[in-house]
Amino acid sequence: MTAHSPKPADHQTSARPKLDAARVDRQRPLVQPWPQAGSIGTTLLGPIGSGDGIYVTDEAGRKLMDGPAGMWCVNVGHRRAELADAMRDQAMALSYSSPWYTTSAPSLQLAERLAAHAPGDLDHVFFTTGGSSAVETALRFMQFSNNVRGRPEKKIIVSRQGAYHGSTYLSASLNGRPRDLNWMDSLSDKVVMLSCPNPFQRPSGMDEAQFADFLVDEFRQVIERVGAENIGAHVAEPIMASGGVIVPPAGYVKRMFELCRANDILYIADEVVTAFGRLGHVFASKDVFGIEPDMITFAKGVTSGYFPLGGVMISARLLEELRRSNHPEAMFAHGLTYSSHPIGCAVALKNLDILEDGLLEHARAISPYFQKSLKTLEELPLVGEVRGMGLMACVDCVADKVNRNPLALDVEVGKRIDAHCQERGLLVRPLINMCVISPPLIITEPEIDRMTEILSASIRQTMDDLTRDGLWNG
Amino acid sequence: MTAHSPKPADHQTSARPKLDAARVDRQRPLVQPWPQAGSIGTTLLGPIGSGDGIYVTDEAGRKLMDGPAGMWCVNVGHRRAELADAMRDQAMALSYSSPWYTTSAPSLQLAERLAAHAPGDLDHVFFTTGGSSAVETALRFMQFSNNVRGRPEKKIIVSRQGAYHGSTYLSASLNGRPRDLNWMDSLSDKVVMLSCPNPFQRPSGMDEAQFADFLVDEFRQVIERVGAENIGAHVAEPIMASGGVIVPPAGYVKRMFELCRANDILYIADEVVTAFGRLGHVFASKDVFGIEPDMITFAKGVTSGYFPLGGVMISARLLEELRRSNHPEAMFAHGLTYSSHPIGCAVALKNLDILEDGLLEHARAISPYFQKSLKTLEELPLVGEVRGMGLMACVDCVADKVNRNPLALDVEVGKRIDAHCQERGLLVRPLINMCVISPPLIITEPEIDRMTEILSASIRQTMDDLTRDGLWNG
Repeated sequence: MTAHSPKPADHQTSARPKLDAARVDRQRPLVQPWPQAGSIGTTLLGPIGSGDGIYVTDEAGRKLMDGPAGMWCVNVGHRRAELADAMRDQAMALSYSSPWYTTSAPSLQLAERLAAHAPGDLDHVFFTTGGSSAVETALRFMQFSNNVRGRPEKKIIVSRQGAYHGSTYLSASLNGRPRDLNWMDSLSDKVVMLSCPNPFQRPSGMDEAQFADFLVDEFRQVIERVGAENIGAHVAEPIMASGGVIVPPAGYVKRMFELCRANDILYIADEVVTAFGRLGHVFASKDVFGIEPDMITFAKGVTSGYFPLGGVMISARLLEELRRSNHPEAMFAHGLTYSSHPIGCAVALKNLDILEDGLLEHARAISPYFQKSLKTLEELPLVGEVRGMGLMACVDCVADKVNRNPLALDVEVGKRIDAHCQERGLLVRPLINMCVISPPLIITEPEIDRMTEILSASIRQTMDDLTRDGLWNG
Repeated sequence: MTAHSPKPADHQTSARPKLDAARVDRQRPLVQPWPQAGSIGTTLLGPIGSGDGIYVTDEAGRKLMDGPAGMWCVNVGHRRAELADAMRDQAMALSYSSPWYTTSAPSLQLAERLAAHAPGDLDHVFFTTGGSSAVETALRFMQFSNNVRGRPEKKIIVSRQGAYHGSTYLSASLNGRPRDLNWMDSLSDKVVMLSCPNPFQRPSGMDEAQFADFLVDEFRQVIERVGAENIGAHVAEPIMASGGVIVPPAGYVKRMFELCRANDILYIADEVVTAFGRLGHVFASKDVFGIEPDMITFAKGVTSGYFPLGGVMISARLLEELRRSNHPEAMFAHGLTYSSHPIGCAVALKNLDILEDGLLEHARAISPYFQKSLKTLEELPLVGEVRGMGLMACVDCVADKVNRNPLALDVEVGKRIDAHCQERGLLVRPLINMCVISPPLIITEPEIDRMTEILSASIRQTMDDLTRDGLWNG
């Protein structure tokens, strides 16, 4: 079995609880994300029936703590009547109006409020339906701008190993997880990949400061080799989320940003996960990392997942450059039927009310407790590292704690731990050899204690399983 | 002024009513679709405050018939309490659950019902957030399938002049309207464009049957030249919508489909506009055009615009080919956070109830009246043709009725007619020299009469304006 060819789903799921099990018995109408060729169209994932606060309940009535907050998105929690009512009320007032010809009060208000929260001169917003379309918008805007400004060669995009930026052709071209690319086409000739800034997997013999130097220097060399005049943008999650909650070394984000600024390369912060409270602030770029990007993409937490909404905050300077260009007639031929959706914007306004009304503060206050509690799991021999920031964390398992060697992919230790956690009432997000935890921001200290207890017991049980099956000798 | 460089918005909008006017006075936070470089970030389109049935009301309290049904989408009409309640109820039951790991009752039910409605063996659905992501999904699936099946060269996509398929890099690469491409990057080396099947602009001396022969023969020649082994798919709106409601010549759709089938080229019907009742059926491909495509993309009408939802119906045969391939481990690394959204699917289920409970029948029954009423506008000297099918129609204006010469683009006759219609209580969708009408399906005969009266009076007034200003001598 090669490194990047996991087994098909129908072999993976034996002896797992119902919720996680893909039932393979007949053709199924619903095709879910990331299917495998061998079982596509025949799997059925376990249904969830309801949600409330930080909990969801499966069809068998089992109540589970929602460890990943859906998909890093249910920030204010499930079953918020304020959001449900906002949807209904806006649907009865105005359910839709074309963003090409008209506008609506919720979209204007939301744009004003986001501009006020965004750092620097990011005073403008273009709304989309999620993260992929937000990244598409940012990149197509970069391409358009450079065409209008007479430098059509300046289009190369710099991304990183381990990154995840979306599931459309262009946004997916930036993805740096091998399993996202193996069988897919991409615009690879327009993308340059840098190393993943994961301190836990840094080259041996380097300390964290040296690792930061190495990463920044690598980018500098790429700029020299490719030429700043050919590089349009660097796109970066401040903390890589799906790549395994990668908290980069101190100073790295700011130094990468400064290198972009010095070379007239747009810095696009992909805050689809980190914005709207996940790190305790509406946007994390300035408040946490001290940078003022040229664009910020966002989605997920902006509506806490209740409505597909995303967008791009854009620097006023970039728009002014276009207005002063020699081609005022040039049209940015880009927009979605559901751009600036009145119901989505109404939900986002109410969601922002909740965040501003104490929840951001709560997230900032409870984050140290959350990180400290999970960090205790590092005592376990299977756990190589627990890392994170704010209310996002990752338990990274290893075959061997000293050398940090990974477990074989087909051990699927994340799925094993998830299965045991579900038996105890916790849903985690398994990610190969990792478990990702990013709960709703409303989580309390006792609930964090319970989460860590369940994780601890489930990891111990997984260690027993692996030892019994001869898959691990930790 | 060249053919494809319309004036910037701030010059276009003088002396137009408030609703249409882009106010350019200061920087504006909200950037709306299709901005022009010269005014980007400074325009504000007229706000709509509320909607009810086939009407919307602007902020000044003026009630307007919603001629384009938003953006071809508000099929069941504004202010449907059933849809508003469905959103609220599902938000209180389960607002979100990750489609990667779980499923929800509404998404399973909707998949079953759509599979039952779809033609042939289109028994599977992959849900997205709108039309662009639906087309991305269909095309990425084609690329993936051909990679897995060992024929990675088979990727060329055949599209058509006048087509509109989306606003992401890949989907937009298929767009065949010059103004959509002028300043944008696209995957042009993977796309071949055929002629627009617009009988009104067919070469002189050809009748419609000869024009159909010409179009089919052009495609046959492309297949011969490019090689069927290099062509992955033909993507086609059964009736081009944004291209100007292009009803192709009789037999054309079926013959193009058969040519694809004979050459192992996937036929992807883009039914984002034509599905969910616009032509009187849930899907139009088989019921109207007699074909069973390999994939059907849909969006808009599936939720009547209340919620961003789209998707692709996929042939069971295509999935079976993948399951039987030599690479069962290959992963279709594609999916959106908001794929299979429980609230979107709940809205779509209720919307489908409404369509099935008499509205499809009503749409079929009233369509001939709608088309006949609008057709009377052809009496007017400025109107070259009124064309359409079902509840979509287009009034195409010309400089000269005999030779069908178009008016100069900067006359913007569509916008002028729209402005006069708005004064009389009708919103139309101006499209350069055309007005598009695609009202909510609930429209009645008296409302159709009123719509045609307003259009007639407004076109007459526009003819007076143009004559006065020396822009037309019809």
